[in-house]
Amino acid sequence: MKRVYNFNAGPAALPKQVLHRAQEELLDFQDTGMSVMELSHRSKEYEKVHQKAATLLQELLQIPNDYEILFMQGGASLQFSAIPLNFLPSDKTANYSLSGSWSEKALKEAQKIGSTHTSSTAKETGYSTIPSQLTLSTDAAYLHITSNNTIFGTQWWEFPSTPSYIPLIADMSSDILSRTINVEDFSLIYAGAQKNLGPSGVTVVIIKKELLEQCPSNIPTMLNYQTHAKNKSLYNTPPTFSIYMLSLVLDWVAEQGGIEAMERINKEKAELLYETIDQSEGFYIGHAEKDARSHMNVTFNLPSEELTSNFLIQAKEEGFVGLGGHRMVGGCRASIYNAVPLESCQALADFMKSFQAKNR
Amino acid sequence: MKRVYNFNAGPAALPKQVLHRAQEELLDFQDTGMSVMELSHRSKEYEKVHQKAATLLQELLQIPNDYEILFMQGGASLQFSAIPLNFLPSDKTANYSLSGSWSEKALKEAQKIGSTHTSSTAKETGYSTIPSQLTLSTDAAYLHITSNNTIFGTQWWEFPSTPSYIPLIADMSSDILSRTINVEDFSLIYAGAQKNLGPSGVTVVIIKKELLEQCPSNIPTMLNYQTHAKNKSLYNTPPTFSIYMLSLVLDWVAEQGGIEAMERINKEKAELLYETIDQSEGFYIGHAEKDARSHMNVTFNLPSEELTSNFLIQAKEEGFVGLGGHRMVGGCRASIYNAVPLESCQALADFMKSFQAKNR
Repeated sequence: MKRVYNFNAGPAALPKQVLHRAQEELLDFQDTGMSVMELSHRSKEYEKVHQKAATLLQELLQIPNDYEILFMQGGASLQFSAIPLNFLPSDKTANYSLSGSWSEKALKEAQKIGSTHTSSTAKETGYSTIPSQLTLSTDAAYLHITSNNTIFGTQWWEFPSTPSYIPLIADMSSDILSRTINVEDFSLIYAGAQKNLGPSGVTVVIIKKELLEQCPSNIPTMLNYQTHAKNKSLYNTPPTFSIYMLSLVLDWVAEQGGIEAMERINKEKAELLYETIDQSEGFYIGHAEKDARSHMNVTFNLPSEELTSNFLIQAKEEGFVGLGGHRMVGGCRASIYNAVPLESCQALADFMKSFQAKNR
Repeated sequence: MKRVYNFNAGPAALPKQVLHRAQEELLDFQDTGMSVMELSHRSKEYEKVHQKAATLLQELLQIPNDYEILFMQGGASLQFSAIPLNFLPSDKTANYSLSGSWSEKALKEAQKIGSTHTSSTAKETGYSTIPSQLTLSTDAAYLHITSNNTIFGTQWWEFPSTPSYIPLIADMSSDILSRTINVEDFSLIYAGAQKNLGPSGVTVVIIKKELLEQCPSNIPTMLNYQTHAKNKSLYNTPPTFSIYMLSLVLDWVAEQGGIEAMERINKEKAELLYETIDQSEGFYIGHAEKDARSHMNVTFNLPSEELTSNFLIQAKEEGFVGLGGHRMVGGCRASIYNAVPLESCQALADFMKSFQAKNR
């Protein structure tokens, strides 16, 4: 069976063991005589899967009991609206820290709903840095950040702190479960699954219970966090197969040694590539400033568009997939989420060196 | 390999051939060296899957070119809000025809957004009939119906007609693709996939292009139908695996002979069960009036709660799954969507007769 070096930005590589397991039981899930996709979401068998995903996530991220874990749909993009609909009352201002295109999009959705303030931005550096010098408005409803920037390849290494009465909200779509975090520093964490958690189609939300009291009843029921909290994410039919795959991925993370192990391997993978860039004497030009470099998305350019284009063509021929930069910025990007094995990064580093040797 | 008689109401049975195909290529989709779940949604390989699902749906349902086919997330429940957000301006009234719990829920979401009118209701018959005597408000923004009632087991056999300036909108979650319809009679059709179309996680929307001009720009981007129409349902990461499964199910429907064939087999399946009910001399009591009977969900009761309970227990022992009625109404329900084979219905009819013989 052919398998490639998958550096896709999301949907992205999944652990081979997880895919094997899913394949094995695809027609008969745990002796039920049905595929997991054919189980009723109200059945005991499915509820076990659902609960297992939540429990594993709680254990892996050490989520305290005063948080709810929700499974929603619509990706981070729908959360961009749900957050201000739930937590931006008319007498307050939503604060956003801009570290890339996704945080800009989040801000735009909030602007449709109420008053907003840009607390900090790294736009002037072409998003090659993480914004500093944060200003919070006095009537701040919350502060929103994007913990990792898939497009520009930057990552927050020190999170901003807010006074306890101002909830810190983070879009962690592209780095959740890749490094240890202190969940208690955040009031709400959300993440589309398709990078570190599983296939696309499910969005994980980790929300402090006390925040739920603020959810207004006049917003669409499906966008109200209370709806999903009250119904254990079974208000309507959840994306059952995606949640099942999430549970398998979480199992796999636990088997690998949990988040600490992931963090260690991810650092090793990232360093392999960044060292290759740094030792190339300017042949490979990293986009992100060194102290803002992401361990999830390594973005770089070659000295000319022609070289970049040849690099991408030859890489593809050698079995490297997904190395083209985001259509907004071009260049190259290697997305090295949890499920991308060290060997893929080693192979890429070797290819980069060999390409440089032939084209210097 | 064990397989059961699956009568789940949704998520529901999938065609065995479809599951086999998905299993076969789960780790290496069409020689890409990746699972279909690992493909970028911006890749040519995935775009083919996405386009194929849309094209097959257009062919099967004979959708005219002045309609857009969209793939969204959040199920019918999110559509309940999206519809009034897009199509209920403050100077108009949304009209709802109530034929069961789902249409009631749709109405409730519209009430949060603007003015509404109940055009007709079958509530007084315990939703055993389809509502008649429709009244439209003079300022009707649209008329909304639910074409099939999963919970009560009724189905619209003759759709209401509205003046051309009043869009007819239908939730077809539980009977899309099960019978021939004239798409042009509707301005918007939507359906969660998990009954007749595939696994849960994707919602199909078929919308007349001229309706898109009405979508206001100040609503959440993800709930704006224009967003998805302009971006071919690739504005953000779609639920790629669910759409892939949808494409396989549509392939299967085409192989079976298309919707006409489905309709013929569904009628045969339904008649088998309704005849068993009708010939039981009151042992099995159908919930729906005869002229409102659904070909998708056959709802019935037994003479006592004890008998109903014994029936469900013994049925389960014999390998029948999902025969319990919805938790709101109790009793029994056999959901016999497209993928439920005739043999399952034959086996159930035989079991019903034998249970009656032993318990009369």
